[in-house]
Amino acid sequence: MEPMARIERSLAGALARAAEPGCPPRLAGAMRHAVFPRGARIRPRLCLAVAAACGEDAPDLTDAAAAAIELLHCASLVHDDLPCFDDAATRRGRPSVHAAFGAPLAVLAGDALIVLAFQALAGCAGQAPERLPALLRAVGGAVGVPCGIAAGQAWECEPGADLAQYQQQKTGALFAAATVCGAAAAGGEAERWRLLGERLGEAYQVADDIRDAACGSEEIGKPVGRDAALGRPSAVRSLGLAGAIDRLEALAEDAVAAVPPCAGSAGLRAHILSETRRLLPQSLARHAA
Amino acid sequence: MEPMARIERSLAGALARAAEPGCPPRLAGAMRHAVFPRGARIRPRLCLAVAAACGEDAPDLTDAAAAAIELLHCASLVHDDLPCFDDAATRRGRPSVHAAFGAPLAVLAGDALIVLAFQALAGCAGQAPERLPALLRAVGGAVGVPCGIAAGQAWECEPGADLAQYQQQKTGALFAAATVCGAAAAGGEAERWRLLGERLGEAYQVADDIRDAACGSEEIGKPVGRDAALGRPSAVRSLGLAGAIDRLEALAEDAVAAVPPCAGSAGLRAHILSETRRLLPQSLARHAA
Repeated sequence: MEPMARIERSLAGALARAAEPGCPPRLAGAMRHAVFPRGARIRPRLCLAVAAACGEDAPDLTDAAAAAIELLHCASLVHDDLPCFDDAATRRGRPSVHAAFGAPLAVLAGDALIVLAFQALAGCAGQAPERLPALLRAVGGAVGVPCGIAAGQAWECEPGADLAQYQQQKTGALFAAATVCGAAAAGGEAERWRLLGERLGEAYQVADDIRDAACGSEEIGKPVGRDAALGRPSAVRSLGLAGAIDRLEALAEDAVAAVPPCAGSAGLRAHILSETRRLLPQSLARHAA
Repeated sequence: MEPMARIERSLAGALARAAEPGCPPRLAGAMRHAVFPRGARIRPRLCLAVAAACGEDAPDLTDAAAAAIELLHCASLVHDDLPCFDDAATRRGRPSVHAAFGAPLAVLAGDALIVLAFQALAGCAGQAPERLPALLRAVGGAVGVPCGIAAGQAWECEPGADLAQYQQQKTGALFAAATVCGAAAAGGEAERWRLLGERLGEAYQVADDIRDAACGSEEIGKPVGRDAALGRPSAVRSLGLAGAIDRLEALAEDAVAAVPPCAGSAGLRAHILSETRRLLPQSLARHAA
């Protein structure tokens, strides 16, 4: 089965819990709205690519890890879009969860999606239970404290934040979990894969800053100019647009160089190059090499 | 070590992650504010009491399960108190998290506490790793979908909610997780313990409704009269005050009868009777038998 089909199947399987008897229908609707229809699914595809490169032998566990990572990503978007943070009315080209369902259900849908990520992992541990603790540690560390997504977002509430630390926690941490979990689900040496994820996460964040500063909202499906409007740290603010594009290209090269020796390293490097080329929006492609 | 000391030690150990390098200090402060100083710790004490009755043999795992349950309880209070839900300015007799730290950090502290519960479980699985999946399932089901706390709270956003279902999900589910996890951590037959937790959770919810309707805010350390003001389902609204007190007493009796046969059943029944007597506030004690 193709990676994207595996990911959608695994996410649909996880979300099926919200369709079971007893679940409030509007909460279930808000959770589905947050996860479907799909975005690029960059992180779970990375997780699957790493697992394949490591000689995947427990595909249900890989699929659960990939779904868990995407569920946590979706949860973070739902909470980031809340009125008390970005107050974003659109996401992926349609109403954000709080715009469609109200802030209370957006808070609860985010909470339930965080929990669902751990439920998905717990439900698929049967294939290789000894790998579960490492997966839980990687996923928990990527979203909690001290250095996960919630911590990264919280730097927006502190008087001074270091840009590199802010981006590493808010974005890099979950990319690192994607590579670490891909390896862990395949029984590989998980922590050797962290650097690759961190580099890709940093590249993705720089690309996101570029899109926010230099694209129209139609092109990227959400409001733009938010970093400048909210005074948030941004690679474009600190490096300028051309400097940020240079930085993105350097990070993509670093990521390719960070792939550990493994049976499927050639295919993985090709995946990474293809993915990083797609990070820069069409309107800026002429700047890229 | 006394149960309360074990619980505080385990919670302090979990919260130590928020004091590690890289964590935003105000987020760490908001998380500590949500968990310390302690409330009654009813759920984790129940977890420890059940583990003891089942012949506890992996105390680190019991402590982690108890801490996880209390962290999830605290997270739910932080999010319940948000302006978009109860908009409660006080909790446990002092400012709620959003009143002290603002709504953004209250959202993130709740998120991070949810994740911390799973991090605590993952970190203590070494003692009996085969028990981890059951613990994760019980905890995840108690806070997520279809029938956990997030689902229970979401019934407040639906046009019609069944009172019993609302209370079972919002309160009973985590009490059930406390008894199920206590048994699971001790290697017992976990699901046999669910009914006891459900009965105790229902008793606790009825007592909470009574306090909200019939006590002063000084006596219980949070705003009162919220159920009526917000038009929420409540045992006092549906049964009247005297009817709600009768219901509480019947549920306490049901709980004692629901203790499964086990080595420590006598001690556990005494614990339950002592706890349920304390649920009714001083000012209403004359009504109770």
